[in-house]
Amino acid sequence: MDTTPRAVTQLIEEFNRLPGIGPKTAQRLTFYLLRAPKEQAEALSDALMSLKERVVTCSVCSNIAEQDPCAICRDEARDRSILCVVEEPLDVLALERTREYHGLYHVLHGAISPVEGIGPEDLRIQELLDRIQHDHTIQEIVLATNPNLEGEATALYLERLVKPLGIRMTRLARGLPMGGDLEYADEVTLTRALEGMRTR
Amino acid sequence: MDTTPRAVTQLIEEFNRLPGIGPKTAQRLTFYLLRAPKEQAEALSDALMSLKERVVTCSVCSNIAEQDPCAICRDEARDRSILCVVEEPLDVLALERTREYHGLYHVLHGAISPVEGIGPEDLRIQELLDRIQHDHTIQEIVLATNPNLEGEATALYLERLVKPLGIRMTRLARGLPMGGDLEYADEVTLTRALEGMRTR
Repeated sequence: MDTTPRAVTQLIEEFNRLPGIGPKTAQRLTFYLLRAPKEQAEALSDALMSLKERVVTCSVCSNIAEQDPCAICRDEARDRSILCVVEEPLDVLALERTREYHGLYHVLHGAISPVEGIGPEDLRIQELLDRIQHDHTIQEIVLATNPNLEGEATALYLERLVKPLGIRMTRLARGLPMGGDLEYADEVTLTRALEGMRTR
Repeated sequence: MDTTPRAVTQLIEEFNRLPGIGPKTAQRLTFYLLRAPKEQAEALSDALMSLKERVVTCSVCSNIAEQDPCAICRDEARDRSILCVVEEPLDVLALERTREYHGLYHVLHGAISPVEGIGPEDLRIQELLDRIQHDHTIQEIVLATNPNLEGEATALYLERLVKPLGIRMTRLARGLPMGGDLEYADEVTLTRALEGMRTR
């Protein structure tokens, strides 16, 4: 006899659908919220609703933002001659935390991965090429894809496309450990990587 | 410069407030939902709202339920002479899964823990005593608190209170590993524990 209220089962199921959350953790979270003040469940519920309502994608750099264009693209103080190409919005966050980079960004939303069936056409690569071709203030591209197989493949692919356009290309120095994930790098490692940029 | 949209920061913070979810996991979940279809964030948001709106506490056994009294307390087929005392609603779930117990329940909502400042008055112990004194069909109490320090203390405390009332008291057999948590026990172990119940 299943005597669990449907609202409880449903929340357990929804938590369980999230990556890295198994059925036991989903149960724990649900029963924690049952005991927690009503406000906490409401705050989480509201935050979830406003996530999709209030977050837009910047039409210039494809980063997530509150407004289009995003705060970085609108910022007059930033160096508009340099574009840092990253895989994910989280990577922008990680680089901003170093306070060492003052150029603009371009977010690909992924990396080339034949295994997962992700090709160049699934990424914001055409947008990057259009941007370079139309905006002649751009002089340099910093490739900051993740230092793993997919990131390397993506960087190589971009190099072949962008170099003929006469744009200088640099990469984050190999202070980053191979097989790692850019967003998990600490500020010092990322700062070193920015300092050691070299022309390809 | 913090360029993350507020809706994103807020959701990361709310996830981070949940037990066992650190800032990195909170980020991961948030960015996963940003990319997932709108329906998934909405479904999770709705499930959270209905959790507090639709779940009530049974006035008889203190278990969580959709209606008051709960489905188990209303079930005519159950043995009303026996009460199983557990710490949490999750423990009821675990025992129901064995299909070996057919009596009623009483949920304490915790265990006595001087370290955490939880005394008998913070648990549904008075409700249990009132229930035993007013409902003369109750002949037996099965103590099914967790087999750890707090659970043991709670069981001993209840024994001292209930025995003078002339009620038979049994405990789940010590098939349960010490230091464990009842809700994590597998069905077979719990079944064994139910089979080996002994009078104190």
